[in-house]
Amino acid sequence: MDFSALKKIIAGYNTFVVTSHIMPDGDSIGSVLAFTLALQRVGKNAIAVVKDDVPRKYAFLAGADDIKRDFDGKCDVIISLDCGDEERLGFENKLKTYAGIVVNIDHHKSNSLFGDINIIENQASSVGEIIYHIIKDMTSIDLDIAQCLYTSIITDTGSIRYSNSTPCCVRILAELIEKGVKPDFISRQVFERRSIESVNLIKLSLDTLELFDNNRIASISITKEIMEKSGAKEEDTDGIINYAREIEGVEVAILFKERGEKLVKVGFRSNEWVDVGKIAEDFGGGGHLRASGCTLKMPLDEARSQVLNVVKKYLAGEGAWME
Amino acid sequence: MDFSALKKIIAGYNTFVVTSHIMPDGDSIGSVLAFTLALQRVGKNAIAVVKDDVPRKYAFLAGADDIKRDFDGKCDVIISLDCGDEERLGFENKLKTYAGIVVNIDHHKSNSLFGDINIIENQASSVGEIIYHIIKDMTSIDLDIAQCLYTSIITDTGSIRYSNSTPCCVRILAELIEKGVKPDFISRQVFERRSIESVNLIKLSLDTLELFDNNRIASISITKEIMEKSGAKEEDTDGIINYAREIEGVEVAILFKERGEKLVKVGFRSNEWVDVGKIAEDFGGGGHLRASGCTLKMPLDEARSQVLNVVKKYLAGEGAWME
Repeated sequence: MDFSALKKIIAGYNTFVVTSHIMPDGDSIGSVLAFTLALQRVGKNAIAVVKDDVPRKYAFLAGADDIKRDFDGKCDVIISLDCGDEERLGFENKLKTYAGIVVNIDHHKSNSLFGDINIIENQASSVGEIIYHIIKDMTSIDLDIAQCLYTSIITDTGSIRYSNSTPCCVRILAELIEKGVKPDFISRQVFERRSIESVNLIKLSLDTLELFDNNRIASISITKEIMEKSGAKEEDTDGIINYAREIEGVEVAILFKERGEKLVKVGFRSNEWVDVGKIAEDFGGGGHLRASGCTLKMPLDEARSQVLNVVKKYLAGEGAWME
Repeated sequence: MDFSALKKIIAGYNTFVVTSHIMPDGDSIGSVLAFTLALQRVGKNAIAVVKDDVPRKYAFLAGADDIKRDFDGKCDVIISLDCGDEERLGFENKLKTYAGIVVNIDHHKSNSLFGDINIIENQASSVGEIIYHIIKDMTSIDLDIAQCLYTSIITDTGSIRYSNSTPCCVRILAELIEKGVKPDFISRQVFERRSIESVNLIKLSLDTLELFDNNRIASISITKEIMEKSGAKEEDTDGIINYAREIEGVEVAILFKERGEKLVKVGFRSNEWVDVGKIAEDFGGGGHLRASGCTLKMPLDEARSQVLNVVKKYLAGEGAWME
């Protein structure tokens, strides 16, 4: 990774805004805070800006309370982290309205390269991993920064359960633990906090679990009634599909979320061989081999029946026939 | 860690039995298989013996199919892994009946030192971590062995979510990934397989979730009826207590498992400050600061009421008064 252009910018300017995408996650918040803290440590006037609510579970991170929701001033440099395009940052105007220089640091292949400098490392597990490499030559990584970087990496690797858990990022985790990070403390904050409403949602959702096609398909349907009855938030539906996906023998898991009388969001996951990206495409959606989604403008019952028919055909090896 | 005595034994003898405790887990199966494979690689006649069912989720590990359930022959050396005392290995007779030399390798402090050689490393995250250090000087760690060791370490550290996730064991994980281990593949096998019966158990158990004392106490009660209705196995109750523990604001989580008309097993977990080891001791049980348990010979209702009263007193800071 070559950071020489970025280093010159850091050396040459004084006011920095570090920002990331709306609907922030552990990697975006962790890397924004780590980089902001590091810039402050080397004497820069740096603030963190995220134009959305910061999930409460990241409130324990140093600097989280100082994240600004709004920014319409001027600065020398805006640094965008973990964001594929400028729009998803949520700023009212083009970034160049606010800053002389735009730096774009990301680990997603599909980045629109909107910066004056673009550092796109798609081999990195997380932006936290890239920021680690930048910071370690800038200043010493203290416990505050270490906790932010650790949070970035474990959230984007699912606590090293995902395929992006490379030797490099795992060694960085080891080093951050050496700096004083308590893995159990961070994991409790990030992974092990549920609202009672989210537990209600799990319970009511599991009541709708159905198996088809010799248990190779499992579906869960979250109706509007279930959302209301549980009192859960939209973010609480994250992960519910895994209860279906993890059942032994299941190849395709489907989550139906009823959003209106004629509006259903559908999520797909597969375990070993079915390309659920293609299935979602059949319905005008998209995604990857193992995770995808689409939106259907029809009642829940109709969406369920149409989607199940198509998934059954894919499982019967008739997917190609569909095209 | 000093393995010189063990190395001499390996060099000087030919037939080895590698074994571990009944009710085997990922660390015991992973370390038994890794060590057995390594001994075979250096030309020894080594077999793995576990006197219990091997959970199906570990069947993907190399050598798992060759684990013997029974052994009543003779060998030069028996190596016990991850086991605090001889009885828990499940052999009919004393180990010395079967072998000239007994080697005892463990990472639990409370080990009865029943071996001719005892290697007890309580700083190690897992026995897999100790075995890694032994094997790396014996033979090259191939992918088969690497997968076994990886399974050991991630199961005993909860995928580096527990406090025993040290820099040393995390670096070993990085090295094993370098040897070809796929973190996502192992995690799917080990953490992400549920029977439909276990999902039923979650659903029925969550119906019994109750909160007390301003949501600082959460309890779940698994009745005999729930076990029968769900069709779940005893091992499926593992982890259910976390649904209670992870609810925001909860300090003490309690799991009641009805085992008979007058027999209740109680599990306790705490998050930050209550010493649930002490609470369990009040009821004749035991455990640690954050995880403990006891068995009560009374009906479920009575057990619930007695336990809740005591837990409330501890939360009110009156624990000391109890003693």
